[in-house]
Amino acid sequence: MKLGTLKAGRDGRLVVVSRDLSRMVEASGIANTLQQALDNWERVAPILQQIYDKLSDGNWPAAKPFDPRRMAAPLPRAFQWLDGSAYVNHVELVRKARGAEMPESFWTDPLMYQGGSDQMLGPCDDIVSASEEWGLDLEAEVVVITDDVPMGCQADEAEKYIRLIGLVNDVSLRNLIPAELAKGFGFMQSKPSSSFAPVFVTPDELGNNWCNGMIHRPLTVHRNGELFGAPDCATDMTFNFFQLLSHAVKTRSLGAGSIIGSGTISNLDRSVGSCCIAEKRMLETLAQGSPQTRFLSSGERVRIEMFDENGQSIFGAVDQKVSASES
Amino acid sequence: MKLGTLKAGRDGRLVVVSRDLSRMVEASGIANTLQQALDNWERVAPILQQIYDKLSDGNWPAAKPFDPRRMAAPLPRAFQWLDGSAYVNHVELVRKARGAEMPESFWTDPLMYQGGSDQMLGPCDDIVSASEEWGLDLEAEVVVITDDVPMGCQADEAEKYIRLIGLVNDVSLRNLIPAELAKGFGFMQSKPSSSFAPVFVTPDELGNNWCNGMIHRPLTVHRNGELFGAPDCATDMTFNFFQLLSHAVKTRSLGAGSIIGSGTISNLDRSVGSCCIAEKRMLETLAQGSPQTRFLSSGERVRIEMFDENGQSIFGAVDQKVSASES
Repeated sequence: MKLGTLKAGRDGRLVVVSRDLSRMVEASGIANTLQQALDNWERVAPILQQIYDKLSDGNWPAAKPFDPRRMAAPLPRAFQWLDGSAYVNHVELVRKARGAEMPESFWTDPLMYQGGSDQMLGPCDDIVSASEEWGLDLEAEVVVITDDVPMGCQADEAEKYIRLIGLVNDVSLRNLIPAELAKGFGFMQSKPSSSFAPVFVTPDELGNNWCNGMIHRPLTVHRNGELFGAPDCATDMTFNFFQLLSHAVKTRSLGAGSIIGSGTISNLDRSVGSCCIAEKRMLETLAQGSPQTRFLSSGERVRIEMFDENGQSIFGAVDQKVSASES
Repeated sequence: MKLGTLKAGRDGRLVVVSRDLSRMVEASGIANTLQQALDNWERVAPILQQIYDKLSDGNWPAAKPFDPRRMAAPLPRAFQWLDGSAYVNHVELVRKARGAEMPESFWTDPLMYQGGSDQMLGPCDDIVSASEEWGLDLEAEVVVITDDVPMGCQADEAEKYIRLIGLVNDVSLRNLIPAELAKGFGFMQSKPSSSFAPVFVTPDELGNNWCNGMIHRPLTVHRNGELFGAPDCATDMTFNFFQLLSHAVKTRSLGAGSIIGSGTISNLDRSVGSCCIAEKRMLETLAQGSPQTRFLSSGERVRIEMFDENGQSIFGAVDQKVSASES
């Protein structure tokens, strides 16, 4: 089934969205918010599934049109957001561009950072940046949302804890990253609020495209209406979501509603383009000695979307405009 | 006033606690949870304050005894937990012990890491660690909980956004930290769930002890009933909470209920002892060439508390036992 969150107050209101993303039904009375649904998944999910089946078959007369501009992030504020960096070729490229070796252990021990989750952006919310000097970048990724996951869960046990799958734009301030990481405590100021696709789906919605903890479909990024990249999410993914989840719970358990990200999708085949501007700039630096492509400026648009084999959008689009902060 | 959260379900139930920590009243009907109170502070706080005043004056016959063992963390799962490292002498010592220079900029640009907040421990919950090899340490700190804070808020405007003040044991796995920080993405596996004092208080409860964004009282740490340290929280605090808050919102706004930590309290006067084991080990290493004090083992106890001038506990105690994981 497909679920989303209508903008309303701090936590929004849960809606069930039809398979073709044309209609929606509010789930109030069953679960007011997505977090409530995740907190009580065993009880709530079968009821939501029934609504979804009828809605998708056109048998829910009271359904309303689905408008992604009215949607918040599925979890407008979440309790946990951990972002991996599962495409290690991309990590190696980042290092290469700044003349640094990548440790061999990066191929076996996942990189993952603790993200901030108190204010997630909706799919069509503006990305507000106070300064263009900060080097505003998009990062198109796949994420999963988990149930409660026990400490020490191994990769081969992880699949059953994955409740929903979706997309994120992990907004990054590239020019703040080197100095911040040099301080040794990881990302904070360089990772402002992320944006999420309007609809998250249960794994069964992806059919055979969800296999072995990876989505076997390209993730499509447009910048100002022009194709920027469409790398395949399963190709060159060094760590699948089961491995990322196991990494996340080595020393702690996770609560229901935890969001785990893949990191920027990246393929070794450069002809498919990139899922972030930084990667393109690094390739330009390696080829031409300096980056040519600019980071995002006020007024620019970013669109991130994934399509099934029939060209149907699976999650709806992250479709955002960059705007300058008033301050 | 003094507020806490009774263990009940995922988010607990808000209680008002008497000034002397002897009695409590459930706040259901006004705000079911502390997060709800913070979400609607302007409306809810005056009502809670009335209850608190009557309760503390002994004029609330239906009040129940306050038992810290029944308490969860004030926010059993929070949306945001950012921990600073405001005692720069301590940071310098950490570096010195491993033979590294500290950059001069650390005196003017705060260190802060993004913590995980989906599962906070109550004051008397066990600290569960799967391996003693990980080097389990306590870190006794002061924290504040904020209202919504706008992006770009400056230090001199920050005070009005601080709603509550409390204590944390920022549990750390010391032996996992060097390898994790070397990967460059900050803390994740090395910082499992933190524990919080049973009661958080509004700034006015501290009277003159809350001044210029610092608490002018010692923070007392006991290990297995023996005093481990009691450094003063205002002494040698390089960045006050107003500066830490301003640092946190440079590139993003913060939602109501965000928790900001001071980092381990540390005084240059070593006779007052330490608020973490690592600091004591570093002092031993510098003096004797190797650390003498062991990290925490299963069965050990940690107690963290702050007293007012009359010896009255302000927040109640973090009072935990270390237990081994079953896995």
